[in-house]
Amino acid sequence: MTTSFHPPQRTLMGPGPSDVSPRVLEALGRPTIGHLDPAFIGLMDEIKELLQYAFNTKNLLTLPISAPGSAGMEACFVNLVSPGDTVIVCQNGVFGGRMKENVERCGGTAVSVAKAEAAFDRHPEASILAFVHAETSTGVASDAAALCRLATARGALSIVDAVTSVGGIEVDVDGWGADAIYSGTQKCLSCVPGISPISFGPRALERINKRQHKVQSWFLDMQLVMAYWGGDSKRAYHHTAPVNAMYALHESLLMLREEGLPAAWQRHRQHHEALVTGLETMGLNMLVAAKDRLPQLNLVGIPEGADDAAVRSALLSQYDLEIGAGLGALAGKAWRIGLMGHACSQKNVLLCLSALDNVLTAQGANINSGVAVDAALSCY
Amino acid sequence: MTTSFHPPQRTLMGPGPSDVSPRVLEALGRPTIGHLDPAFIGLMDEIKELLQYAFNTKNLLTLPISAPGSAGMEACFVNLVSPGDTVIVCQNGVFGGRMKENVERCGGTAVSVAKAEAAFDRHPEASILAFVHAETSTGVASDAAALCRLATARGALSIVDAVTSVGGIEVDVDGWGADAIYSGTQKCLSCVPGISPISFGPRALERINKRQHKVQSWFLDMQLVMAYWGGDSKRAYHHTAPVNAMYALHESLLMLREEGLPAAWQRHRQHHEALVTGLETMGLNMLVAAKDRLPQLNLVGIPEGADDAAVRSALLSQYDLEIGAGLGALAGKAWRIGLMGHACSQKNVLLCLSALDNVLTAQGANINSGVAVDAALSCY
Repeated sequence: MTTSFHPPQRTLMGPGPSDVSPRVLEALGRPTIGHLDPAFIGLMDEIKELLQYAFNTKNLLTLPISAPGSAGMEACFVNLVSPGDTVIVCQNGVFGGRMKENVERCGGTAVSVAKAEAAFDRHPEASILAFVHAETSTGVASDAAALCRLATARGALSIVDAVTSVGGIEVDVDGWGADAIYSGTQKCLSCVPGISPISFGPRALERINKRQHKVQSWFLDMQLVMAYWGGDSKRAYHHTAPVNAMYALHESLLMLREEGLPAAWQRHRQHHEALVTGLETMGLNMLVAAKDRLPQLNLVGIPEGADDAAVRSALLSQYDLEIGAGLGALAGKAWRIGLMGHACSQKNVLLCLSALDNVLTAQGANINSGVAVDAALSCY
Repeated sequence: MTTSFHPPQRTLMGPGPSDVSPRVLEALGRPTIGHLDPAFIGLMDEIKELLQYAFNTKNLLTLPISAPGSAGMEACFVNLVSPGDTVIVCQNGVFGGRMKENVERCGGTAVSVAKAEAAFDRHPEASILAFVHAETSTGVASDAAALCRLATARGALSIVDAVTSVGGIEVDVDGWGADAIYSGTQKCLSCVPGISPISFGPRALERINKRQHKVQSWFLDMQLVMAYWGGDSKRAYHHTAPVNAMYALHESLLMLREEGLPAAWQRHRQHHEALVTGLETMGLNMLVAAKDRLPQLNLVGIPEGADDAAVRSALLSQYDLEIGAGLGALAGKAWRIGLMGHACSQKNVLLCLSALDNVLTAQGANINSGVAVDAALSCY
């Protein structure tokens, strides 16, 4: 017999969704109002302004897409790519691969490259450079400023995946000169999954306005989305906005502004350092070179003697703790430990280290037992 | 200074979103868990089963799309239409027009018809017949059984928009032989907006599996979506499910099953009759012939002497009551009064009639004042 669902109380330290702040959950459950209610229109304006803060941009076309980050990615590609366009995709993980899939479905020619610059040399006609700022599959940060600069220098637009970066590490849309960028709510924003904040700069907007081909997606056609989210007082109905999710996003962005971006980045850095110290003291290996590491997503090698699935299952059942499996080529070889948003706290660092220590020891894995927590504490 | 958003307490009697049940809001705000958590996988299975009940179908490919109804519509079209296909779209309102827009973006040729049968005679090659079961812009119900039967007889697939119908009037996917159908959460399901339940029958599934062209949308590609929602125990990550919205959907579907579909339809019928009696006694005109009326969405003419926007604004500011404006050709000529899901109650019928009576009388509109409520009460 199916009954009401009461979820277990987890601590979410995987690749996302991450722990949602109680303030955000409370906002989420407030009574629904109409998507054209004057009070909701006011909320939309505040959300746009708060998103400009989070993205570090003055772009007017900054708004949340009513669907998850993969739809935000698709919104960037379908609006900016036309059939026959050459697009350079920097593929350094699963999400770069997904970008390539998106480009192909838009009729563009995807080029997977090791070096974006060399790709431009071979494909001077390329009109877009797309890359993932914070690769959630590998835990690696890319140099977004340099890549955006390169795109501009070659007369191309940049499309930046900032799903995992916004709120966790510096994102500077205007400083980078990024042309299109999308993020997700379920990572470092401490919000529920399901919405994708997005921002288009003036050159991207110009390309959208000059399109010869209709955008292949009606739902993601920014000309239509803009008419609802746009700046003037008359809102053209496009689709029914996910009203309650907007309450949650608003609250989460408000929390980010209260904390302040530099403080939020510093918090992610601090707990990351404590976690890494603990993991390394335990004898585990970080898989990403220190200079490229994302503080909010930590790739750690699975130690000898440990069974990937059994460890994660024990963490979940004994400690209500979720960490992430490896994705793509790293499946079975690495764990992904998230420290994102509300989940990025000293309490969670200590929980994760002690739980891992106990579970690995019980499984007879080859680690230094009983020393990780003290090592981490020494970082505070 | 931006602060936490506390929405006003509205009564939502427009075209949707409608009032959300407190049970659903409470479920929505429960703690987030991972989208691959065993507990969440169990919830997904229950949701699929509950959706089969709501749609009256045994279709295995029955699941919620992680975006609003317009994305559900797009999911049907992009997965079932290939470039060059002929699609017959029955356009009897704004949402039929939106279907036509969708078809054109898939490379298909849209044919707007008055009579689907005549359209098949002229276009025997047509591979899809698409129609809106309950047109939210006009308040008109179509004969879904006959249209699905026609499609099957002509060797075409049917695509049915059931956004406003599920939970409010009979939807019988298997009985009709409907091939693809989508709905929305924000109408008669008493749930928050943002999710689109969808179901594909065996012939639609076969067409998906035999596609020669890649689906133009990665996010809505059912082959990929199925791999996450599919029946086997190994779930392939596609996108991060909107976890909390799934809690809400589950609770709303559970409520529907507790009430029972026939009882829910009867409730919509009963309150609709009381509302219509009250409105007509007041001297207002229902714009749809009685046999074609949707009980959950009532199109009523704006009476002489009444200012459309001023009346709706007064209802909102003085009574916290939202009713809908006319859409498309009916803008300025009609109001759309919803009685959907949790909002479909005697209390709301009486509130709506007394508030309308007072506001129209205050504006000097030509109505019979002070008699509507008693007339409605005589129906109970």
